[in-house]
Amino acid sequence: MQILFIGDIVGRPGREAVAAFLPELQKEHKLDLVIANAENASGGRGLTKEVAYELYDYGIHFLTMGNHVWDQKEIIKFIDDETKLIRPANYPKGAPGKGYGFVIRNGIKTGIINLSGRIFLPPLENPFTMVNQIINMMAVETPVIIVDFHAEATSEKVALGWFLNGKVSAVLGTHTHIQTADARVLDQGTAYITDVGMTGPRDSVLGVKKEIIINNFLTQMPARFEVADGVNQLNAVVLQIDEKTGKTQRIIPIQK
Amino acid sequence: MQILFIGDIVGRPGREAVAAFLPELQKEHKLDLVIANAENASGGRGLTKEVAYELYDYGIHFLTMGNHVWDQKEIIKFIDDETKLIRPANYPKGAPGKGYGFVIRNGIKTGIINLSGRIFLPPLENPFTMVNQIINMMAVETPVIIVDFHAEATSEKVALGWFLNGKVSAVLGTHTHIQTADARVLDQGTAYITDVGMTGPRDSVLGVKKEIIINNFLTQMPARFEVADGVNQLNAVVLQIDEKTGKTQRIIPIQK
Amino acid sequence: MQILFIGDIVGRPGREAVAAFLPELQKEHKLDLVIANAENASGGRGLTKEVAYELYDYGIHFLTMGNHVWDQKEIIKFIDDETKLIRPANYPKGAPGKGYGFVIRNGIKTGIINLSGRIFLPPLENPFTMVNQIINMMAVETPVIIVDFHAEATSEKVALGWFLNGKVSAVLGTHTHIQTADARVLDQGTAYITDVGMTGPRDSVLGVKKEIIINNFLTQMPARFEVADGVNQLNAVVLQIDEKTGKTQRIIPIQK
Amino acid sequence: MQILFIGDIVGRPGREAVAAFLPELQKEHKLDLVIANAENASGGRGLTKEVAYELYDYGIHFLTMGNHVWDQKEIIKFIDDETKLIRPANYPKGAPGKGYGFVIRNGIKTGIINLSGRIFLPPLENPFTMVNQIINMMAVETPVIIVDFHAEATSEKVALGWFLNGKVSAVLGTHTHIQTADARVLDQGTAYITDVGMTGPRDSVLGVKKEIIINNFLTQMPARFEVADGVNQLNAVVLQIDEKTGKTQRIIPIQK
Ligand SMILES: [Fe+2]
Ligand SMILES: [Fe+2]
Ligand SMILES: [Fe+2]
Ligand SMILES: [Fe+2]
Ligand SMILES: [Fe+2]
Ligand SMILES: [Fe+2]
Ligand SMILES: [Fe+2]
Ligand SMILES: [Fe+2]
Repeated sequence: MQILFIGDIVGRPGREAVAAFLPELQKEHKLDLVIANAENASGGRGLTKEVAYELYDYGIHFLTMGNHVWDQKEIIKFIDDETKLIRPANYPKGAPGKGYGFVIRNGIKTGIINLSGRIFLPPLENPFTMVNQIINMMAVETPVIIVDFHAEATSEKVALGWFLNGKVSAVLGTHTHIQTADARVLDQGTAYITDVGMTGPRDSVLGVKKEIIINNFLTQMPARFEVADGVNQLNAVVLQIDEKTGKTQRIIPIQK
Repeated sequence: MQILFIGDIVGRPGREAVAAFLPELQKEHKLDLVIANAENASGGRGLTKEVAYELYDYGIHFLTMGNHVWDQKEIIKFIDDETKLIRPANYPKGAPGKGYGFVIRNGIKTGIINLSGRIFLPPLENPFTMVNQIINMMAVETPVIIVDFHAEATSEKVALGWFLNGKVSAVLGTHTHIQTADARVLDQGTAYITDVGMTGPRDSVLGVKKEIIINNFLTQMPARFEVADGVNQLNAVVLQIDEKTGKTQRIIPIQK
Repeated sequence: MQILFIGDIVGRPGREAVAAFLPELQKEHKLDLVIANAENASGGRGLTKEVAYELYDYGIHFLTMGNHVWDQKEIIKFIDDETKLIRPANYPKGAPGKGYGFVIRNGIKTGIINLSGRIFLPPLENPFTMVNQIINMMAVETPVIIVDFHAEATSEKVALGWFLNGKVSAVLGTHTHIQTADARVLDQGTAYITDVGMTGPRDSVLGVKKEIIINNFLTQMPARFEVADGVNQLNAVVLQIDEKTGKTQRIIPIQK
Repeated sequence: MQILFIGDIVGRPGREAVAAFLPELQKEHKLDLVIANAENASGGRGLTKEVAYELYDYGIHFLTMGNHVWDQKEIIKFIDDETKLIRPANYPKGAPGKGYGFVIRNGIKTGIINLSGRIFLPPLENPFTMVNQIINMMAVETPVIIVDFHAEATSEKVALGWFLNGKVSAVLGTHTHIQTADARVLDQGTAYITDVGMTGPRDSVLGVKKEIIINNFLTQMPARFEVADGVNQLNAVVLQIDEKTGKTQRIIPIQK
């Protein structure tokens, strides 16, 4: 099967990039399933219900989140009713929403897990111990499991990749908004990339107007972030997976 | 002119990768100048005098450092005598060593600046304000200026790239040990990459044995880091620069 | 001379505590000068012009700030016109406002410096090197100099106290909102306390409703901070200073 | 019953302070039980077996630890055999040692819990959820339960105090090495202090030679910490507890 995973979609430009590039990616890669990280999809921060449904309309089948999950407060109300939207699984028990889910496309069931790192990020539950428990539950349902590891430090991301090598189909990093050049299939059949990258305005600082961020570094004064404009990019990976075994045969980095 | 910049060399495996791959890179790219980040060259932490001279012997002309600069204490004694070795320029006044330097190769003078980021790193002086002053001094001597920005956060690195766009030949990120897939020449002729990547054992966590780091994330117990072994990689970029103007024409990411 | 320094005033309850307790402190300690940290005076975050003038009306002669200085955006407009209000001196050059100032009361000129720590706080300029320069300028005008060091880590605060021992009349810590029990005059005549404490609702978490903060630690979900109510406290110190020499003779911790 | 809790003992000077002051405290307060935080007892970092037994010899009945628990590596070998020594309970399952324990003195059983905060400290398990489970187990054995909360941020410490108000006899903060002036019995009978303070050399930076730490702040160069000398202090609290109910009647801060 062929899965497309799109990196952090930032604001309206990011959504426009999805609308513009997804049809040709569909055609070229004969995609069975499209997953995207949507933590910045609404104005660069969080996700409203309206934007979630806009993304479904473009042909995205499943959404993951990250540290910005609660930035649009309305998500607290609607996330429990959503079956195609997950947030990091290592929030403490009782948090709204779920940390993993299943989606069936073209007769194939895929399990998706969202996790947050803890280095330079809030102290959620241990992602290493927690992911093991989740995988054990999910493996009963399907061998195809995709992990979105939303984390800052490369050490934590690379370590989780090795830790899950052979246990899941892919460990895909998100959050830093810059695609890394280390996409490969590890020796036990797990695809790995440290960061899928960002989908949105290219000539920006992680999606935000560059002048604002530069000024912030110069002055240490607070800044009102605004999503940049200009040329749009889409960053993603295509995974070619043997759905019988869950092993990934190939990971192809995409930059549009 | 053609410059090769090699990303963080980690321990003996990293030095062996330099010895193994540099001759062919020399031949293929007709290099005028070879620069490398050496902050992890001695046992994964810091740089001894012996290892510095070993690296010079392999054909590296100039060395930069990073947050691990003082890990081998002997460097405090010898760094002031070295003319081909710099540490982050934004250490407070009075710190041993220099933060920038010049090297002449094939009749062309190149200025090199080393800077440290401050997000998730110690509070050195402001790299944005400081680099401007240094560039003003160096620009009198040569238009070819290379910046090694040793930093953790992608926001800080991307912002410095834009900030120096048109003022230097290249802003090359180091420190995260994972090469990014965003190498390009910005619109004012400044080459940019968020991270050049790491030179050393590939099947590791940033150069360290993966079992040690995974165990550290599982248990939060202290770990004694050991440089990994196995397949060796070299991560670098080649810069093709117009030495008359200092503008970069092309940046080529290298993975061996 | 007798100086009262009041710790971080939090919201309306904090202002009411000032109004309630300052008259009796005036009477008891025959105060020449009243200084207060006002970084939380408006709704727990920042300082509006209206609240600044309310505090002046209560008899406070000079206000200092901290990491919350820009939380009420209007301060960016009015701080440059204020002569009795300072923000941390180690903001980069060009930031609005000033980092030190003078006030004359009963014929005695007092210099006041506001500094921010950098451990667990944004990377402003180095407070240790910067304060030395400021003191050299101020010492020409008066031997009586008070430093409000707004910092998190006890190591940084204690170190600055020793560093300025004999150079200023007092180093008074703020920011942690809990008064420390280490007020004393160091051997060179500098009064020192790691934290003066907080002025506002006592049965709270640093001034905020305790239920909100506890829930935040349990769930890691975002919280909308609200200033607590109930019993009000005022935390402060009285400094008895020889205005001829600038040496402090006595520091008296106050808890009302 | 009367319990003495001694704040972080730093190195040989700290142990000498215990030896010097404990006999008179015994006499004055008729102590039933003496507990101490020993995370810095061996050379300022960690705890060796020899030093643990030296502390027992002075009359300390039970030892708690903190973030420095593993600094002396031999503790990993002997901590599992110790019944009077605990480390933060919120280390992940499988860590050496235990996070809580009981001690019987003069016929009264006391439960002691050690916890680490997570703000500005490593991401151990959530202390708020974990302590609730531990208290439920311990409450079957005795109503007298003492919590050593080893944490940096005042918000986290104050919040845990309120969270455990009425559930334990005392929440005593450690780690910042500066005694706070907020010791009191909360309205449900739980004694609380944000930090008990440090036992060791007074004219120092948290026990370390002040010149070393000041130089570190000025230069950002690494420093070799050395325990200071000079006047010794002991920081502690005495708890007067009704052993029938576990309610604390009085908390007396001690500074010698
Ligand atoms: Fe993002
Ligand atoms: Fe993120
Ligand atoms: Fe490195
Ligand atoms: Fe580094
Ligand atoms: Fe405050
Ligand atoms: Fe503050
Ligand atoms: Fe300690
Ligand atoms: Fe500690």
